[in-house]
Amino acid sequence: MALLVQKYGGTSVGSIERIQAVAAKVAMAHSQGEQMVVTLSAMSGETNRLIALACQLNDQPSAREMDVLVSTGEQVTIALLCLALQKIGVEARSYTGGQVTILTDSVYGKARIQDIDGHRIRADLEAGRVAVVAGFQGVDVDGNITTLGRGGSDTTAVALAAALKADECQIYTDVDGVYTTDPRVVPDARRLDVITFEEMMEMASQGSKVLQIRAVEFAGKYAVPLRVMSSFVDGPGTLITLEDNDQMEKPVVSGIAFNRDEAKLTIRGIPDQPGVAAKVLGSISEANIEIDVIVQNVAKDNSASITFTVHRNDLQQTEDLLRAIAKDLGAEEVNTDSKIAKVSIVGVGMRSHAGVAARMFECLAGEGINIQLITTSEIKIAVVIEERYLELAVRALHAQYELDS
Amino acid sequence: MALLVQKYGGTSVGSIERIQAVAAKVAMAHSQGEQMVVTLSAMSGETNRLIALACQLNDQPSAREMDVLVSTGEQVTIALLCLALQKIGVEARSYTGGQVTILTDSVYGKARIQDIDGHRIRADLEAGRVAVVAGFQGVDVDGNITTLGRGGSDTTAVALAAALKADECQIYTDVDGVYTTDPRVVPDARRLDVITFEEMMEMASQGSKVLQIRAVEFAGKYAVPLRVMSSFVDGPGTLITLEDNDQMEKPVVSGIAFNRDEAKLTIRGIPDQPGVAAKVLGSISEANIEIDVIVQNVAKDNSASITFTVHRNDLQQTEDLLRAIAKDLGAEEVNTDSKIAKVSIVGVGMRSHAGVAARMFECLAGEGINIQLITTSEIKIAVVIEERYLELAVRALHAQYELDS
Repeated sequence: MALLVQKYGGTSVGSIERIQAVAAKVAMAHSQGEQMVVTLSAMSGETNRLIALACQLNDQPSAREMDVLVSTGEQVTIALLCLALQKIGVEARSYTGGQVTILTDSVYGKARIQDIDGHRIRADLEAGRVAVVAGFQGVDVDGNITTLGRGGSDTTAVALAAALKADECQIYTDVDGVYTTDPRVVPDARRLDVITFEEMMEMASQGSKVLQIRAVEFAGKYAVPLRVMSSFVDGPGTLITLEDNDQMEKPVVSGIAFNRDEAKLTIRGIPDQPGVAAKVLGSISEANIEIDVIVQNVAKDNSASITFTVHRNDLQQTEDLLRAIAKDLGAEEVNTDSKIAKVSIVGVGMRSHAGVAARMFECLAGEGINIQLITTSEIKIAVVIEERYLELAVRALHAQYELDS
Repeated sequence: MALLVQKYGGTSVGSIERIQAVAAKVAMAHSQGEQMVVTLSAMSGETNRLIALACQLNDQPSAREMDVLVSTGEQVTIALLCLALQKIGVEARSYTGGQVTILTDSVYGKARIQDIDGHRIRADLEAGRVAVVAGFQGVDVDGNITTLGRGGSDTTAVALAAALKADECQIYTDVDGVYTTDPRVVPDARRLDVITFEEMMEMASQGSKVLQIRAVEFAGKYAVPLRVMSSFVDGPGTLITLEDNDQMEKPVVSGIAFNRDEAKLTIRGIPDQPGVAAKVLGSISEANIEIDVIVQNVAKDNSASITFTVHRNDLQQTEDLLRAIAKDLGAEEVNTDSKIAKVSIVGVGMRSHAGVAARMFECLAGEGINIQLITTSEIKIAVVIEERYLELAVRALHAQYELDS
């Protein structure tokens, strides 16, 4: 008898029929003797519907009231799933975040979980009941309703699994696992049976949207075995686990992630002296703009140039800030480019293999693709290239590292 | 500076525009220095939409899960009203029933309020904030969400007013007060400035649908001044108060209530012996069918007959039960009649006036209306007549007691 935490996203509970299908899946596992905790998102579209209502009333809505409002979405689905389970003879009980209690800090809209009181759920499990918990929400120490931000339901599931010491946390979504890369770009892309937390985090941070990075981080921290599965297709999915030591079988590269959400900015001809990078990037961070890749070079005349990437939505605001800084520092020029893409190869096998980077650069050179920026971590190499070469680069690298076999 | 509790029903918050109108009303009172607590129902139609979703999944839905589901309706409106208030510069904070805390028993779907912890709301009022509380819902001692049943938002408002020792509880609805009778039947019907709790309770129980009887009872018990007002038309509404002792000015009859929701059943020729009424009516009560008027007579042959009324929706089930009982008791016959109506005159003035009943019966006789059943209380006389005479009876009685002047 295992204790499973299952999480179903918005499309998985998007209609009466799909809720019935989820109930059937849960009932199947329950009938096989598993102890079941289920976490749900709101029905797809519901959160946006509620936000639209709010925005008609107030274009700068209070975060506290938004959380009161949008948390109703999950409260509806947990009750409906319990009704569907009871209809097919499975005892079930629903819990809002506040009822569990899922205690969070008071940062409305992106609260962080601080503690989970599992005693009510444990009582249900011991009585043979399925516990159905609203994802994405919690309550602060004063009893105010909080939400964890977009994708927070994954985090709820992982946190519940950690608190209850579950045997596995299964994230049901609309894909049947984690792939070596996006199958829409590389038709030969292969579902991975296993991937490590570290690799999954790099994949997520580099643009793979299968799982929220925060949930993966949480699962890694508490060593909760995490499995990504499809709500619509049966199959084993992809298990995300701690790194095994059997490096023999590990491929050098596990997957290729990419994104085209970023834009590149360069400031040239700034004095090469201490504190310049901090001055350039500090004021951008202060404006709550997230900076991704950062590269700094020194030119022949000893002036420095800094290049970095931000989300394309932030490009205009960043450019305005950067031009002000440039004027201030007496920099030569500011350039921007939004037609870029980032491609990353990810794999824990890199740690014990030399020459991985060189092989990547050669592969891209062989396709005539110029590399604009390079950034690396212990288990990842990312390059920024012209956007129009993205698909070509991903396909070439996928073949290069034999990920299709 | 007065402390006001205002309650707005589903049609009053049924759209973005109406929520803005409620916000304007609340802001107006707040700007005049009143301390404001606002209780809301769900947007009209929302509760039925949620129930319809549930019924698609389970035709015998668990009451606990239904309460989790439908309580989201008010949670949405309280957040939206706070956003609308904040937009026009009024600080406001929303509370679910559980957050207040409104403690109830555990009878899901028709819970009763046991206690209200007003300390969070008092803190808001002292800080100059408007507290916006979800109507219709509470939480039991184990933290389960409960609802108070249809019309429960009125009860929430009154209970809050009692707990907070409010100066007045104002129920905003789609009529501008309590009338001497239904203006759709008697165009001359007059809005009452004042009515006593007892009269209002009799009016409600006799068919006047302005206020839930439970809320009136609660207000009377805790002596909370209650005012019925229109959300759509400005005006003083009707104040419902404790009986004043100035009987001089009291009219004998304050209002005329009626309903045509009932059906009549008669069982004839049953042995006139102890326990027979209990046997006949007991098994009907056990089936959770509510019995209204009951009359028992003894015929010349010493056999008894019992006549009673039930809601028309319960007629078929009641008739089936009654026929079984009749067979059991060897009764002569069972008759049913659903074409009846009940008309009641209500007034605390009756206590100190003789001949009120006789005058009523004479008035009806003068119109050629036969009285089938009579039942009385200290401040009410109700008669059952043929349904087709209903409007005629109400108009004649309205004129008889000079309620239009």
